Amino acid sequence: MGEFELIERYFAAIGPSRSDVILGVGDDAALLSVPAGYELAACTDTLVAGRHFPLEFDAADIGWRSLAVNLSDLAAMGAQPAWALLSLTLPNVDEDWLESFATGFSALALSAGIRLVGGDTTRGPLTITVQAMGTVPAGTALRRSGAALGDLVYVTGWPGDASAGLALIEGRLAGQGANRSALETQFRRPEARWEFGGRLRGIASACIDISDGLAQDLGQITESSRVGAVIRAAELPLSRALYALLGEGRAREAALGGGDDYELLFTVPPSARTELLRILASGRAPACHCIGEITKGRGVRVIAESGEIKVPRGWNHFLE
Amino acid sequence: MGEFELIERYFAAIGPSRSDVILGVGDDAALLSVPAGYELAACTDTLVAGRHFPLEFDAADIGWRSLAVNLSDLAAMGAQPAWALLSLTLPNVDEDWLESFATGFSALALSAGIRLVGGDTTRGPLTITVQAMGTVPAGTALRRSGAALGDLVYVTGWPGDASAGLALIEGRLAGQGANRSALETQFRRPEARWEFGGRLRGIASACIDISDGLAQDLGQITESSRVGAVIRAAELPLSRALYALLGEGRAREAALGGGDDYELLFTVPPSARTELLRILASGRAPACHCIGEITKGRGVRVIAESGEIKVPRGWNHFLE
Repeated sequence: MGEFELIERYFAAIGPSRSDVILGVGDDAALLSVPAGYELAACTDTLVAGRHFPLEFDAADIGWRSLAVNLSDLAAMGAQPAWALLSLTLPNVDEDWLESFATGFSALALSAGIRLVGGDTTRGPLTITVQAMGTVPAGTALRRSGAALGDLVYVTGWPGDASAGLALIEGRLAGQGANRSALETQFRRPEARWEFGGRLRGIASACIDISDGLAQDLGQITESSRVGAVIRAAELPLSRALYALLGEGRAREAALGGGDDYELLFTVPPSARTELLRILASGRAPACHCIGEITKGRGVRVIAESGEIKVPRGWNHFLE
Repeated sequence: MGEFELIERYFAAIGPSRSDVILGVGDDAALLSVPAGYELAACTDTLVAGRHFPLEFDAADIGWRSLAVNLSDLAAMGAQPAWALLSLTLPNVDEDWLESFATGFSALALSAGIRLVGGDTTRGPLTITVQAMGTVPAGTALRRSGAALGDLVYVTGWPGDASAGLALIEGRLAGQGANRSALETQFRRPEARWEFGGRLRGIASACIDISDGLAQDLGQITESSRVGAVIRAAELPLSRALYALLGEGRAREAALGGGDDYELLFTVPPSARTELLRILASGRAPACHCIGEITKGRGVRVIAESGEIKVPRGWNHFLE
């Protein structure tokens, strides 16, 4: 089976039909319509086999993750997912693998309302690059650079779970039962927070997704915003599964430095706190905790009961 | 040096400043402004080391080619290049290589007016994925599907040169001097025809870039347009260098099946021929030749003086 037939069979109709797709898969480029008054948000992330997921990782999970990590970037901008391109480099043509990959990608695409509109299929070491595009009302996107002194720092979900899940999958950590399963799922099928990201427009002063570790990514906000930040270790949300597996100290380390969480880390001016709490109380928001605040100075400090503790290094593709 | 510093140093300011870049490299996603009345054209192509270029290929040429192959897709839609994302997977951090890659990428980006607005850097086997985005007045993009009975088939440039250039670089073909150099340059530094592609709006009824070989790519037009096509072998433009190196027979084979040319193949209704000739005579157009016409039926036939000849198979990543 040739390249063209591959693309046609598995990738011709992934995600919902959208009236703003003028021309989808099958020509030299896709043609898309960005509504008047909106900006286009565009991002890309690559997953390399053996680097971003284990070599024997389930193909459906790879499909899901490759889209999720990009949806998370759109979420961090407060953008609504719209279209994706997929560049798939495969060592060989394995139809079972392709079908499974497409199933995982498709499940999340339908849920997020994002349509696959093009891509490229090549032969080589397994590598998946997705480009996600979304739309956001002009001038309202969330950036990393808007945090100001006194803003509160919030995080969604349960940071650290995904990195513990990966350690379990790779056998670097031992565990079993419901806790193991809960943590593994956080790595295999991250929920990107695009819906909640959109609701943070007009509320959050800065936002980022924590793919590289909470502390390091907060450092991106403080650097872009030219401020400092303090995290209160006691306020870090630790999932029951993470706590049970690692104990408090190591669970905090995972939460601060673990990476792969694809949760949102954002800052909220005190004046917008009531509006945020209203949204959180609406029942349509993920778990969300205030973990600290923006300070003078530079950099990120973590304060525990015992005093300041060392900020764990984030996950860096070129340092690890 | 970490991932963030890498990206910042080499990729923070590639291509011209553009007022439609609301937010470029350095946040979770780029923010871009598509003008009212325009559609967004988006495409992606991946180059894998050892597959799409030789393992020891010059880094500046890799940079140039990785953008050129995408600009060529925009050209085939008649779209104006605007923005690019770059996903770079590298086996290690080699600053000389990065600087050279950035130089080649940048040279073409400046020439095409396209701005690098984001990307991702990961560690792994050398693989480059570029996503190019452009704009085109709504409803005017060139598609593969518009060819009609009696339309004339044109091709820009000198098809076959790039594949002969690659064969020379890889030592599969012997040659020297100016001919060798001319052919190699066609592979190393393809000129994408984005300017000419834009001028074909309103003139061409269908268009594609010949990355997979002229005959196979014409087959994409005939399939999308539900027509047939005939190519007159005697009308195929053969460069002096290709002719000198291969002789007429093999030069024709290279022109029909060679691939990697990144020239435009397009069809023109007889009623628009005068307008095309006016553009070709303006001095601002590439070499362009009429090589055949659209017929009834299906598929592509090639007619030589001796009768119909076999259509060479195109370059297919999963069949070769």
